[in-house]
Amino acid sequence: MSTATRFSGILAPVVTPFRRDLSPDPERLIDHCRWLLTKKTGLAVFGTNSEGTALSVDEKLALLDSLVDAGIEPGRLMPGTGCCALTDTVTLTRYATELGCGGVLMLPPFYYKNVSDEGLFASYSEVIQRVGSNSLRIYIYHIPPVAQVGVSVDLVERLVRHYPRTVVGIKDSSGDWSNTQALIGRKSDDFRVFAGSEMFLLQTMRAGGAGCISAAANINPAAIHQLYAGWQGATADSLQQGLNEFRLLLQRYPMIPALKAVIARYTRETEWGIVRPPLVELAGDQYQTLIEMLEKRGFSMPGRCD
Amino acid sequence: MSTATRFSGILAPVVTPFRRDLSPDPERLIDHCRWLLTKKTGLAVFGTNSEGTALSVDEKLALLDSLVDAGIEPGRLMPGTGCCALTDTVTLTRYATELGCGGVLMLPPFYYKNVSDEGLFASYSEVIQRVGSNSLRIYIYHIPPVAQVGVSVDLVERLVRHYPRTVVGIKDSSGDWSNTQALIGRKSDDFRVFAGSEMFLLQTMRAGGAGCISAAANINPAAIHQLYAGWQGATADSLQQGLNEFRLLLQRYPMIPALKAVIARYTRETEWGIVRPPLVELAGDQYQTLIEMLEKRGFSMPGRCD
Repeated sequence: MSTATRFSGILAPVVTPFRRDLSPDPERLIDHCRWLLTKKTGLAVFGTNSEGTALSVDEKLALLDSLVDAGIEPGRLMPGTGCCALTDTVTLTRYATELGCGGVLMLPPFYYKNVSDEGLFASYSEVIQRVGSNSLRIYIYHIPPVAQVGVSVDLVERLVRHYPRTVVGIKDSSGDWSNTQALIGRKSDDFRVFAGSEMFLLQTMRAGGAGCISAAANINPAAIHQLYAGWQGATADSLQQGLNEFRLLLQRYPMIPALKAVIARYTRETEWGIVRPPLVELAGDQYQTLIEMLEKRGFSMPGRCD
Repeated sequence: MSTATRFSGILAPVVTPFRRDLSPDPERLIDHCRWLLTKKTGLAVFGTNSEGTALSVDEKLALLDSLVDAGIEPGRLMPGTGCCALTDTVTLTRYATELGCGGVLMLPPFYYKNVSDEGLFASYSEVIQRVGSNSLRIYIYHIPPVAQVGVSVDLVERLVRHYPRTVVGIKDSSGDWSNTQALIGRKSDDFRVFAGSEMFLLQTMRAGGAGCISAAANINPAAIHQLYAGWQGATADSLQQGLNEFRLLLQRYPMIPALKAVIARYTRETEWGIVRPPLVELAGDQYQTLIEMLEKRGFSMPGRCD
């Protein structure tokens, strides 16, 4: 199996548009994915910022079908498939693999806390064996601030040792640079380490990482990709500085509602603002100050909102 | 709607038996439920100790069907129906309600952390409105040590005010007695407060609570029910003391694997020991010491294991 099939670069955890009745809207999702692809941004659908866990398995399968039927290249898709229920994770992972998705981003089962590495290894192992496909490519999803259940460097090591052609990368959303360093440092293979935020992109690239999978890539993909493409160039530090400023501005707001509010504003499709409970839309004053700050920066979403 | 339809007393979060291939075993579940009913213990299937979140929605619907088809009285069932995905919670809750279940035990959506009361209210509210049944009875499931997302007393108050005939009780597994007291204290209605462990049963009954929903009721239901029935009697404190000793012994082990190991030992059905990843079965030496301690106490499961 060629390592050329592994992901690198920038991916967006694609936000999921809903209709007024809270059902997913495949047409608006397709539009957004097409735009992201024109910005050289891969599609990590059903991630944390996609409200992935707020969707049923059937809703996710239907959305995958819609994307592929619309001509989205499956190799650019890295759907989140890790659920609390072993059987749900298997169903989603198998389907994504059969569709030809370039990989899957897999949370550990996250309901039970303080579970052992042995149990988490058994969980990933069981999924891999049940799916039983040479085409399966798993990117581990390590996001302890949200999932609370993390995947240790030791466990990653053990998984890669047992499944070197299947467990091919990780998204590290720990926010702990020493952990990302340790993950990159362990590679004697072609293991792909993605930062969970573009604020770590330059550090990640300089250390030998593969790129980032970042919320902000939903609205700011070109600037993030510019740093990825130019990380060895003279302007890299100033590009990183610009990304940081943008991110820090965005982080003043709840991330998912903020991303959706921005897309709603610039596409003039107000339904983009809709989130599923337990999330709530941005309050009117939050929306106003966010949009004003973006306009002050000369922000736009070229090609998305003309 | 008569309040006589509300639960009180002792319920077990019924452990879910698996076959070697990790599929749920409805026959062994039916046997265990029938035994629990003979011990006057209600059936909170698909709770935390049931590995409820490790089962897909379809697996849970099929198990509910199996139980009711086997003649288990649906009014004695309080299935866990709260999932991360709004649509999954609606599917399960609607199905359980249509089957005639006495109520449902509903976790809040637990993936996103630090969500607002407003968002959680919207989540419960959306489920209630979509199910849209006068027969629906929700018992809120507050278990912050595991779910990390809790349901505050204020939010309970707001839900009861909006849905007084639907939101009728709570299981408080916070382990924080002051929270349980506040929940019982707020009732000006017939709101049913269940302790999440039998170690709080006597305190709960004396304060005006409804009973408990407790892991240990899977193997020790008669003794727990004895205290429930006799909480006003002279021996209540010593009964509570006995329950505490048993619980503290059990808590030296991972709870779910320990419960299953005990049932496996006393039913002589070794498959009862099987858990789904990320949980792991008791190690051999843990199993030995647990069983020895139980035997030293003269423990048995009368009627279950003869």
